[in-house]
Amino acid sequence: RAERVAHFEQDVWSIFTPLAIECQAVNLGQGFMNFPPPDFVVEAAREALLRNDCNQYSHPKGRPRLRNALAKSYSPLFGRTLNPETEIVVSAGANEGIFAIFAAYLDEGSEVILMEPFFDQYISNITMNGGVPVYCPIRPKGDATKNMAASEWKIDIKELESKITPRSKIIVLNTPHNPIGKVFSREELEEIGALAAKHNLLIISDEVYDRLYFNPQNHERIATLNGLWERTITVGSGGKTFGTTGWRIGWLIGPEALIEPALAAQTRIIFCVNSPLQEAIAIGFEQAEERGFFGSQVAAYEHKREKLLAVFRELGLPCTIPEGSYFILVNTEKIQVPSDYKFPDLLWQRPKDFRTCYWMAKEIGVCAIPPSEFYSKENQALAENFARFAFCKTEETLDAAAERLLKMK
Amino acid sequence: RAERVAHFEQDVWSIFTPLAIECQAVNLGQGFMNFPPPDFVVEAAREALLRNDCNQYSHPKGRPRLRNALAKSYSPLFGRTLNPETEIVVSAGANEGIFAIFAAYLDEGSEVILMEPFFDQYISNITMNGGVPVYCPIRPKGDATKNMAASEWKIDIKELESKITPRSKIIVLNTPHNPIGKVFSREELEEIGALAAKHNLLIISDEVYDRLYFNPQNHERIATLNGLWERTITVGSGGKTFGTTGWRIGWLIGPEALIEPALAAQTRIIFCVNSPLQEAIAIGFEQAEERGFFGSQVAAYEHKREKLLAVFRELGLPCTIPEGSYFILVNTEKIQVPSDYKFPDLLWQRPKDFRTCYWMAKEIGVCAIPPSEFYSKENQALAENFARFAFCKTEETLDAAAERLLKMK
Ligand SMILES: CSCCC(=O)C(=O)O
Ligand SMILES: CSCCC(=O)C(=O)O
Repeated sequence: RAERVAHFEQDVWSIFTPLAIECQAVNLGQGFMNFPPPDFVVEAAREALLRNDCNQYSHPKGRPRLRNALAKSYSPLFGRTLNPETEIVVSAGANEGIFAIFAAYLDEGSEVILMEPFFDQYISNITMNGGVPVYCPIRPKGDATKNMAASEWKIDIKELESKITPRSKIIVLNTPHNPIGKVFSREELEEIGALAAKHNLLIISDEVYDRLYFNPQNHERIATLNGLWERTITVGSGGKTFGTTGWRIGWLIGPEALIEPALAAQTRIIFCVNSPLQEAIAIGFEQAEERGFFGSQVAAYEHKREKLLAVFRELGLPCTIPEGSYFILVNTEKIQVPSDYKFPDLLWQRPKDFRTCYWMAKEIGVCAIPPSEFYSKENQALAENFARFAFCKTEETLDAAAERLLKMK
Repeated sequence: RAERVAHFEQDVWSIFTPLAIECQAVNLGQGFMNFPPPDFVVEAAREALLRNDCNQYSHPKGRPRLRNALAKSYSPLFGRTLNPETEIVVSAGANEGIFAIFAAYLDEGSEVILMEPFFDQYISNITMNGGVPVYCPIRPKGDATKNMAASEWKIDIKELESKITPRSKIIVLNTPHNPIGKVFSREELEEIGALAAKHNLLIISDEVYDRLYFNPQNHERIATLNGLWERTITVGSGGKTFGTTGWRIGWLIGPEALIEPALAAQTRIIFCVNSPLQEAIAIGFEQAEERGFFGSQVAAYEHKREKLLAVFRELGLPCTIPEGSYFILVNTEKIQVPSDYKFPDLLWQRPKDFRTCYWMAKEIGVCAIPPSEFYSKENQALAENFARFAFCKTEETLDAAAERLLKMK
């Protein structure tokens, strides 16, 4: 077994998703939908399967129809005419796309600046490619014992700059942010962008929740800011956009000079992305606008967000109110886990939030994700009084979760 | 751009597949079908898309239904009861599965023994993970100016052993072999296996064409030979098995101790494989036996093979007659390419077979693949008088190719 995989611990998803099933908990853990994708997207996939040209290899950079549809949908959002031939690559999910970027840009010892908390897969994606993650905290500036806007989680830009060394190659931004739900403001993006420019860093902007935000006026893309297009790769996700997390369709958008090495790496890793579901996501984008899909999807998610927030309000558990994504970070300090509760040994090797989430799944019947998985080892204690709840679920599921959670009152 | 991707040249697929389209050549190049997958598999995919649980993330190791179906189908072929929980992992195509194995086992400088020619993607899959490919030729022992059985291509086992060093970690076997069409005999597998055991090498047995062979009595799996199960990961392909190269479903089979690190790596690279098409491949395996699918597929391919072989016989172009896979290696020495033909500059940087194949696509209207791509730089000259033709095409396509090729008579 190679050094690069020797230290892997079991990932949080393969602990809590099976646990939720095993104890029949209402699963608000891993971020996937338990409702169907929109009919017009599913029908597009069903029809694609009947066409010969949708069942064989696609071009490694992605099917032309999907790249064209992405260019059309994203060009207005980027304020420039995106070239579907050279500035867009389809990936096998956003995760693989990010892995391919790291494969394309990191040499042994290259450093990558991450804001903490971060999506857990970043770490292995970096270290498997010889890179070294360097962490800068996003700190809650509000009172964590009260409800707080996600925007009150802040980065200290001086502290961020202090993390940059001659070995720094890449900075990763994630907005809307998982697990905080924070949407970075224009001012914050400008500060981060200025740092990246000053120190010649590549920016990976992970914007997989870019169709799921609740403050539209506050939603900016770092790639559109002055001079930053040339150093930014923006990452998107079909799974998050159309409720198809199991289709494994993502994309990278950026200037040709940055995209081409990522494509070269990806072509070797996976050769190409599955064809019929690419075609369906293309048709999804082609029809989304006229169907008003994105707007009604945001409205539906906003309603789900309110429903779940109301539960925590009633329980007196302080929340971070998300401005985007489908996650709520909840302060669990007031939850009383019996001190003599019997936990599996595995859980004693993990931070306290793992045990809180385990107990909730078993005894309350609602599964959440312990956010210490989103922190570096040194800072996992910051997460010990939190749990992350996903609201990308049916109203019925959220009602069932509410009923169970309210028993803790 | 990282060192590990800096030296990549354009891959052969993204040169010749677009070329075939551009000059409307009959495409016998890249190995994909131009006929639909079997109805029962397509229908299974269409139905899976209507089920909620088939549109979201699957477990990183693959959907239980597919692992169960694979265990059921492969257990008799392996002569042991495969455990679907621990001995089978679904990958995003065989290519990604092989990449994940290298990620899991290679450290900086680890050597991987390849038999030459080899499937081109192996090289980048190895080097991107810090490994060093070491080559041992498979040499045509027959008279290359006459038709020859693929089994006449032989490895020299002493030469193979001479390539092993203290840094050797893995040996890659590919049977049925792309591009030779050779099916390794039991004796050959035993010799290779004995070497692997003696020098404690992991064996990757790439058997993606394992349902497409024309000498069933001669088809052995190295993993079933005495003591070799413990050191072998066998790789399979849904695309090759069911004519769905664009679905990106592959699998790894081996003992838990070997499979687990590959799964750990894969979970970080792609997180999971697309769900609806996994479900369809599961149903494909569940129904293949009773429908007699594999038998009739082999019969259909055998007919296609004969049709294409007849063309080269008529042209007096000597072939390697494949025992498995859907490729024919053809000796092109007798083809007269005009010496003053204008080739794009790019092609002058490549071996002669690139120019022969380019000229055939442009002037004869039939596209084949130059096999020098399957050789190390030092040995590319061995390929200069060959072209690889794929016969995974409709009878009509093969007839059209025949008509055009016969104009060279
Ligand atoms: C790798 S599973 C990820 C699902 C997800 O995005 C999340 O729940 O954070
Ligand atoms: C990476 S494309 C491969 C297709 C194929 O297997 C072949 O043609 O050899």
